[in-house]
Amino acid sequence: MPARICDPCLISMENNRIKGTDCKSTPAVKGTDYKSAPAERLALIREALKLNKVDFYVIPSSDPHMGEYIPDYWKIIPWLTGFTGSAGTIVITVTFAGLWTDSRYFIQAEKQLSGSGFEFVKPGAFQRNDYMDYISENAKPGEKIGLDGRIFSLAAFRKLEKRTEGKDISFDTNCDLISSIWTGRPPLPFSSAFDHPVSFSGKERSAKISEVRTKMKEQNADYHLLAANDDIMWLLNIRGNDLKYSPLLLSFALIGMEQILLFIDEAKIPPKLSSEFDRLGIVVLPYEEASSITSSVTQGHSVLYNPQTTSIELFNSISGNSKPIEDLTIPARMKAIKNKTEIGNIEFTMIKDGVALTKFFYWFDTNHGREPLTENSLSAKLFEFRVQQEDFLGTSFATISAFNENSALPHYNAGEGPGAEIGERGILLVDSGGQYMGGTTDITRTIPVGIPSPQQKRDFTLILKGHINLALAKFPDGTRGYQLDFIARRAMWGSGMNYAHGTGHGVGYCLNVHEGPQSISPADNKTTIEAGMLTSNEPAIYREGEYGIRIENLILCYEDEETEFGKFLRFDTVSLCYIEKTLIDKSLLDQKEIEWLNSYHSEVYDKLSPHLTDEERNWLKEKTDPLI
Amino acid sequence: MPARICDPCLISMENNRIKGTDCKSTPAVKGTDYKSAPAERLALIREALKLNKVDFYVIPSSDPHMGEYIPDYWKIIPWLTGFTGSAGTIVITVTFAGLWTDSRYFIQAEKQLSGSGFEFVKPGAFQRNDYMDYISENAKPGEKIGLDGRIFSLAAFRKLEKRTEGKDISFDTNCDLISSIWTGRPPLPFSSAFDHPVSFSGKERSAKISEVRTKMKEQNADYHLLAANDDIMWLLNIRGNDLKYSPLLLSFALIGMEQILLFIDEAKIPPKLSSEFDRLGIVVLPYEEASSITSSVTQGHSVLYNPQTTSIELFNSISGNSKPIEDLTIPARMKAIKNKTEIGNIEFTMIKDGVALTKFFYWFDTNHGREPLTENSLSAKLFEFRVQQEDFLGTSFATISAFNENSALPHYNAGEGPGAEIGERGILLVDSGGQYMGGTTDITRTIPVGIPSPQQKRDFTLILKGHINLALAKFPDGTRGYQLDFIARRAMWGSGMNYAHGTGHGVGYCLNVHEGPQSISPADNKTTIEAGMLTSNEPAIYREGEYGIRIENLILCYEDEETEFGKFLRFDTVSLCYIEKTLIDKSLLDQKEIEWLNSYHSEVYDKLSPHLTDEERNWLKEKTDPLI
Repeated sequence: MPARICDPCLISMENNRIKGTDCKSTPAVKGTDYKSAPAERLALIREALKLNKVDFYVIPSSDPHMGEYIPDYWKIIPWLTGFTGSAGTIVITVTFAGLWTDSRYFIQAEKQLSGSGFEFVKPGAFQRNDYMDYISENAKPGEKIGLDGRIFSLAAFRKLEKRTEGKDISFDTNCDLISSIWTGRPPLPFSSAFDHPVSFSGKERSAKISEVRTKMKEQNADYHLLAANDDIMWLLNIRGNDLKYSPLLLSFALIGMEQILLFIDEAKIPPKLSSEFDRLGIVVLPYEEASSITSSVTQGHSVLYNPQTTSIELFNSISGNSKPIEDLTIPARMKAIKNKTEIGNIEFTMIKDGVALTKFFYWFDTNHGREPLTENSLSAKLFEFRVQQEDFLGTSFATISAFNENSALPHYNAGEGPGAEIGERGILLVDSGGQYMGGTTDITRTIPVGIPSPQQKRDFTLILKGHINLALAKFPDGTRGYQLDFIARRAMWGSGMNYAHGTGHGVGYCLNVHEGPQSISPADNKTTIEAGMLTSNEPAIYREGEYGIRIENLILCYEDEETEFGKFLRFDTVSLCYIEKTLIDKSLLDQKEIEWLNSYHSEVYDKLSPHLTDEERNWLKEKTDPLI
Repeated sequence: MPARICDPCLISMENNRIKGTDCKSTPAVKGTDYKSAPAERLALIREALKLNKVDFYVIPSSDPHMGEYIPDYWKIIPWLTGFTGSAGTIVITVTFAGLWTDSRYFIQAEKQLSGSGFEFVKPGAFQRNDYMDYISENAKPGEKIGLDGRIFSLAAFRKLEKRTEGKDISFDTNCDLISSIWTGRPPLPFSSAFDHPVSFSGKERSAKISEVRTKMKEQNADYHLLAANDDIMWLLNIRGNDLKYSPLLLSFALIGMEQILLFIDEAKIPPKLSSEFDRLGIVVLPYEEASSITSSVTQGHSVLYNPQTTSIELFNSISGNSKPIEDLTIPARMKAIKNKTEIGNIEFTMIKDGVALTKFFYWFDTNHGREPLTENSLSAKLFEFRVQQEDFLGTSFATISAFNENSALPHYNAGEGPGAEIGERGILLVDSGGQYMGGTTDITRTIPVGIPSPQQKRDFTLILKGHINLALAKFPDGTRGYQLDFIARRAMWGSGMNYAHGTGHGVGYCLNVHEGPQSISPADNKTTIEAGMLTSNEPAIYREGEYGIRIENLILCYEDEETEFGKFLRFDTVSLCYIEKTLIDKSLLDQKEIEWLNSYHSEVYDKLSPHLTDEERNWLKEKTDPLI
C-alpha cells in the first residue's frame, strides 16, 4: 500500500515514521456515536479553554506510542467531530474550531464535519498551509497554546515551536481537556502477549538485548527509552493483538545495563513468558507509571530516545536531570535489517501469499460475469484465500479493492457497505497484505476488466517501466532511498505524469506494514538502504474520476559485488504474483525491461505452481508466458 | 570544478555551503614562513591551554564569513602547522596535537606535517571518524573544550555539541589563543567597492532591499543578519577584491525595516557609492563592531539568520534578548534564481568563455609536440585567452590542468612550479572558470593526447551518458537536487563505478563559483531546483595512479510544460565547448544520447564560430561534426 500522501512536495514518509493510511477504514468507536452532539462537546471544551486561560487548543490524531494504528481510547477527533479519517489535527479557540487533514480525506472531511461546529480547513493544493500556519498567523503576543503532552510527539511539538518562532506565545503541554468530558470513553485494549519463537525471529531475546546494550555503550547511553510498540515487540520476541492490522501490545520500555523496565498491563504477560522475563532481568511495571518511574530512574544518567516516537510527557520525564541523546532507536535500526532466518521465512511467506493471490485472481477471472461482485465481496474472498495459509495472523492493513474511479484514490476503502459493483469494463486495483508469523506482506496488482483502452495500456506500461527500473537498480553501499526514487518516476516524468506519494516504504517482519527507518521517496530520509532491508516498490498513476494504476512488489536488498569503487547493492523482488500482460504496450518497453518481466514471471510460475490446482496452474501458465 | 569531497557517503555540499576546494593552491601567507618553528608555537599554545584551564583547543579553517576563500589573516592552520590545504581542523591538548582533513589532502598533509609536532589523523576510508569523534572518545567528565567563536559557525558548533552529548563537558567559545602569539600576522585585506550596474545585475539595489524586507515580514523577522559576503554584495549591487577568485568584500550587514547597518571598513566605499548608500538608509559602521552594535540594536526583536554562515560570536550577540529565526538567508534564496537580465548576460558570457576555451584547445592541438608544454603553461595560456574577453575579472578558482595520474585527483593543482610535462600519450583534464561582470563560469573538458585506450573510451562514454541524461532530465516543480543525482550515475553504477563528489553545485553570478543553496548530489539538501537556477553537471571517474575523466557544463533550469499533474521543469545547457568525440565509444550510446550530442555540437559551432579565425573555425567544424 502506498505511504501517506503529503501535499506540498510529494513527501510521504516524513521523518521516517508514517501515520495514518487507510481512508474510511477506521471502525466506529464502540459505545460512542460519532454524530451525537459534537456541538455540545465543543461548547464544554470552550468553557474549559476559558477556565484554563488557553487560547488555542490543539488535538492531534496520535496516541502515546506514535504508531500508525491507535486504540479507540485515543480516537478523540472522531468522538469530538464525527470525522473518522485516520489523520488530522484540530484547533479550537473560543471563536474558531477547525480540522486540517491531508488530501485523501478532503471529500470525507467536508461531508462528516457538516453541522458539527467544526470547519474543514482545506489547504491550497500546493501550499504548506496547515494548522501551524493558522496558529502562527492568528496568535497574538501573550497568548497560550494548550495540548495534551501524552499524545504529542516531541518532534511535532518542536515543529510547532519553530513555526511560531519570533512570536511571544507560550505553551501548556499538560493540558487534557477531554478526559473529564468524555463519558463512556472506550477502555484501553487488552490482549495477551504470545511468543515469537526463534524459528521465526532468528535470534533469542537475550542476544538482541545484549546487542542493543553494546550499541548503547557505543552511543554513551546509560538508558534507552522505547515508546514505539514495535521496537519492544521485536526486542522481546513477543507479539499481541492490542491493535488492528499490527500484532502489537501497548507498552513502553526503559533499557538499562542490568535490567529492562517494561511498562505494560501485567495481566497481558502469560506465566511462561513472565518467568523467562524474570530470568532476563525484565521487570514488568504498570503501564501508567512509565513517566514517573523513568523520571526517577534516569536522574543523572544519559538517555537515548527518538524525538519522533517520544511524547512530550515522556520527554519531560527525562529532560530535567538526565543527559539527552537523540537518535533513531537502536531496535528500529536493527529490525530493519532482516536476518537469515527472517529472510528464509519471508521467502516461504511470499509463496503462501502469492498462492492466495493467484487463487483469488483465478477465481475472479472465472466468476466475474457469472455472479454479482462488489469491491468488498472481493476483499472478503481474498481474505478467505489468505486464511487458508499456514501461520496467517490477519490482514496487515484494510484491503484496498477499488474499481474504476475509486482506484484513482490511492488510499480508497469501500467502507462498511458492499462497495461499488465490479462492472463489465474498467480497471480493478487490489492492494492487500497479510501478517504471518514469518513476515508481513503488501502487494498491489491492477487488472483490466474487459478490454483496456490505449491510454490505460500506456499508463500501465510507463508505471511498469518505473517498477522494473527500480527492481533492476544497482547502487553503491551508502545510497539513501531518496537517490533511487527518480528511477521509478523517470518514464512518467518524461511524459509529464507523476504520483503524489513515495515509491517505497520499509516493511516490518510480523510487525508494521509501514515500518522504516528506510524509504524510497522524495523525502529527505537520511537512512541508507542496506542489505537485508525489505522495502516496497510501488509506482502508480491516478487519473481523477477515471482510474488508478499501481504495481507493487516488495524488494529485498542484497550485496551484489565489490569493485575498486566500493561495495554495490541490488534488489531481489520477493513478492510473487503475475503482472497483467494485457495491460502492457510492448512497444514502450526496452529489451532489458522485457527480460526482467519474463524472468520474474518464470520465477512466479515455478514457485507457485506446485501449490495450485490443475486449472489454476494452467491459467497461471498462460498469465506468466514470456512476452515476445 | 567538483564540489568538496566527503568520505563517508559521497556528500559534497553539506548543509548548502561548501568550504575549501583547491588543493595546494593556497598561497603562502605573506611575511610568514610556514615551516618556521611550528613546534615553538605549539608549545606556546599548550602553555595558554593550562593557563585558561582548557583541555581541548579546536581550530577550524574558516573565517568569520564562512566562505570558501579566506583572507591570509585567518590562515591559522598553515601558520601553525605548515599544512597549506584549504580545509582541515586541528585539535590540541597538552599531550596531543592532530590535524583532520579530507581525502584530497591526505598525501599533502602527511608530507607537510612531518616534524611539525602535529600528527596527521587519517580516518578510515569509509568511517565517519573525525575530530569530533576524537574529542568524544577522549574527553573526560568535567573537561573543557576551547575555541574561537568568531570563526566557528553556529551549525558546526551545534554538531560538536551533539557529538559530545551525554558527556559532562563544557565549552569556552570565546577562546582566542592565537592573536597574542602570532607575531607579524598579515593584516585584513583592503580593496575598494565597485558598482555592479543594473545592466549586469538586472535589478536596482533599492528594489532588492524592498523585496527582502517584504520577505522578512512574511517570516515575522524584524531584523535580518547577513554574515556571508556574497549575500551582501548581491543585495547592494557591489563587488570588490578582498579575496582571491570571488569578487567580494569582507562585511556583515543587519537589515532593519528602515535602515541597513553595513559593517565594513569605511574607506572601502568610494564617495559616489557612499552618497547613494546614504540616500537608501544604508549606514556604514566599523567592521569590528558588528557584534556589539547588533547586540544592542536587536534587543527585544526577532532576528532571521542562517546558522551555517553565522559565527558563534555573532549568534551570541543576538541570542540573549532577541527572538531567533533560523533559516537560509533571504538573499541566498533570491540570488540563486537568476533574473532575465542575468540570464541574458550569462548567455553572452558563455560565448566569450567558450571562445577562449576553443582558442585554447585549438592552440594546444596545433602546438603540442612542437614545444614543451606543462600543466601550468597550459593554465597560463588559457588565462591569456580569457583575459582577451570583455568584462573578464579573473579566474573563478585555481585552474585544474592535470595530465594522466594527476587528473585522477579531483582537486589537483600543479602548485607553483611548472607542473607535470604533457607527454605524448595520455589524458588531459582542464577544469577552469572565469569571473565576468555578466556571470561566473566553470567548465571541464577531458581530451586524449595521442590514441586513447578502450578502457578510457568506455569510461568517458559512461560519464558522457550520465552527463547527457541529467541534461535531458524532465522533472516536476518541487524536485530536489538529490532526486536527480542518480541519473548522472546510473550507467556508471551499473558497471560498478562511482565518483566521490556531487554531480552539481550551484553557481553564482559574478560571485562564488560554488554557490548554493541548491546542489545535485547525494546530500540531503532540501532546496528544490527552480527555474532560473544555474547548476553544474559534472559526472566523473578517477582511476588512482592512471587518469581521471570529468565532463562539466553549467545547466540553467527553465519551465517546460504544465500538465494535469503539475508544472514540469528541464535544463538548458549553457556552457559552450566541444566534447571530444575520439573518446566516445558510440556503441554504448543510445539514439537519444547521440541526438543530444549532435544538437549540442551544432549549437556550439553556431554560437562560437563567428568569433574565431578561419583556422579555428575549420578545426571546430570537425570537432563538432555529427556523430553518425
